[in-house]
Amino acid sequence: MHGYTQDKDNYLKRLARIEGQVRGLARMIEEDKYCIDILTQVSAVTKGLQAVSLRLLDEHLKHCVAEALAEGGENADEKVREASEAIARLVKS
Amino acid sequence: MHGYTQDKDNYLKRLARIEGQVRGLARMIEEDKYCIDILTQVSAVTKGLQAVSLRLLDEHLKHCVAEALAEGGENADEKVREASEAIARLVKS
Amino acid sequence: MHGYTQDKDNYLKRLARIEGQVRGLARMIEEDKYCIDILTQVSAVTKGLQAVSLRLLDEHLKHCVAEALAEGGENADEKVREASEAIARLVKS
Amino acid sequence: MHGYTQDKDNYLKRLARIEGQVRGLARMIEEDKYCIDILTQVSAVTKGLQAVSLRLLDEHLKHCVAEALAEGGENADEKVREASEAIARLVKS
Repeated sequence: MHGYTQDKDNYLKRLARIEGQVRGLARMIEEDKYCIDILTQVSAVTKGLQAVSLRLLDEHLKHCVAEALAEGGENADEKVREASEAIARLVKS
Repeated sequence: MHGYTQDKDNYLKRLARIEGQVRGLARMIEEDKYCIDILTQVSAVTKGLQAVSLRLLDEHLKHCVAEALAEGGENADEKVREASEAIARLVKS
Repeated sequence: MHGYTQDKDNYLKRLARIEGQVRGLARMIEEDKYCIDILTQVSAVTKGLQAVSLRLLDEHLKHCVAEALAEGGENADEKVREASEAIARLVKS
Repeated sequence: MHGYTQDKDNYLKRLARIEGQVRGLARMIEEDKYCIDILTQVSAVTKGLQAVSLRLLDEHLKHCVAEALAEGGENADEKVREASEAIARLVKS
């Protein structure tokens, strides 16, 4: 079980919406829509993905990392290192 | 016709791949995959979308904006303003 | 002369404020301030720099790139390529 | 004492370099340097600040948050909430 497990439906709904938006982008390209309108839509999809990431990370800290830290030991250090690397990837992407 | 028109197939291929990756994210959630692995995959999707944006913007500058600037007048100013706003949205998202 | 030349004082004022904020960050570290408060302040500095970038880029498109495009030829292509690369660096940083 | 305390000199050195780079940006504006070269330099400063943020956050998770989680209770939840908000600010800036 992971931090996000109790909230699966919410994540699946968000991802279904994002998938629909990506299909919408392809349709805009096919229909020769104006570049700037497509770019605006891409920014909306990116924001949606960012919200998913931040929520996953928050749950991960609250559950997986918190449990590992409560237990202490090497696994705790490893979990923090792993979380920091994921944060760095998010910040840089 | 827009900057991206001559390259439609390439954009559609990229977007189909991104759509598949988003579906893959939903599958990872359904199968209770590890949060950090899901986050890594979200970063990959975000990078893919970013590449689409930067390419669209480059073509937009090269075609739509370039034509408007060659003609001059109010439309030229408007096109540059619009491009600057799209860039700001990209940088902030 | 460049796009930003007529607005130099404004840029210099913004940069002087950013310089002061960076010195403020060093003081916060020296005085053992709370990490989260320092991070909040770093985000403020980053936002300030981002605003400078977006403004410089906007002026650059309006002046240097617009002039090159009005003249046409190889220099026009080169200017657009260069602007696109600068936008990509901004978006990725 | 905070996560970064044992490493203060390193942070102060990095911030002194960033402060110098911001002064360098002002000098470039004063000397009418080419916009694209200024933008390249702004990206370098932003990257430097980002590295400071990511390191502060990593130390914060390893020390302040880890200690609060080891103790448990309300303070632990509060620390994780606070860290998640700081991460969101970083990702969005």
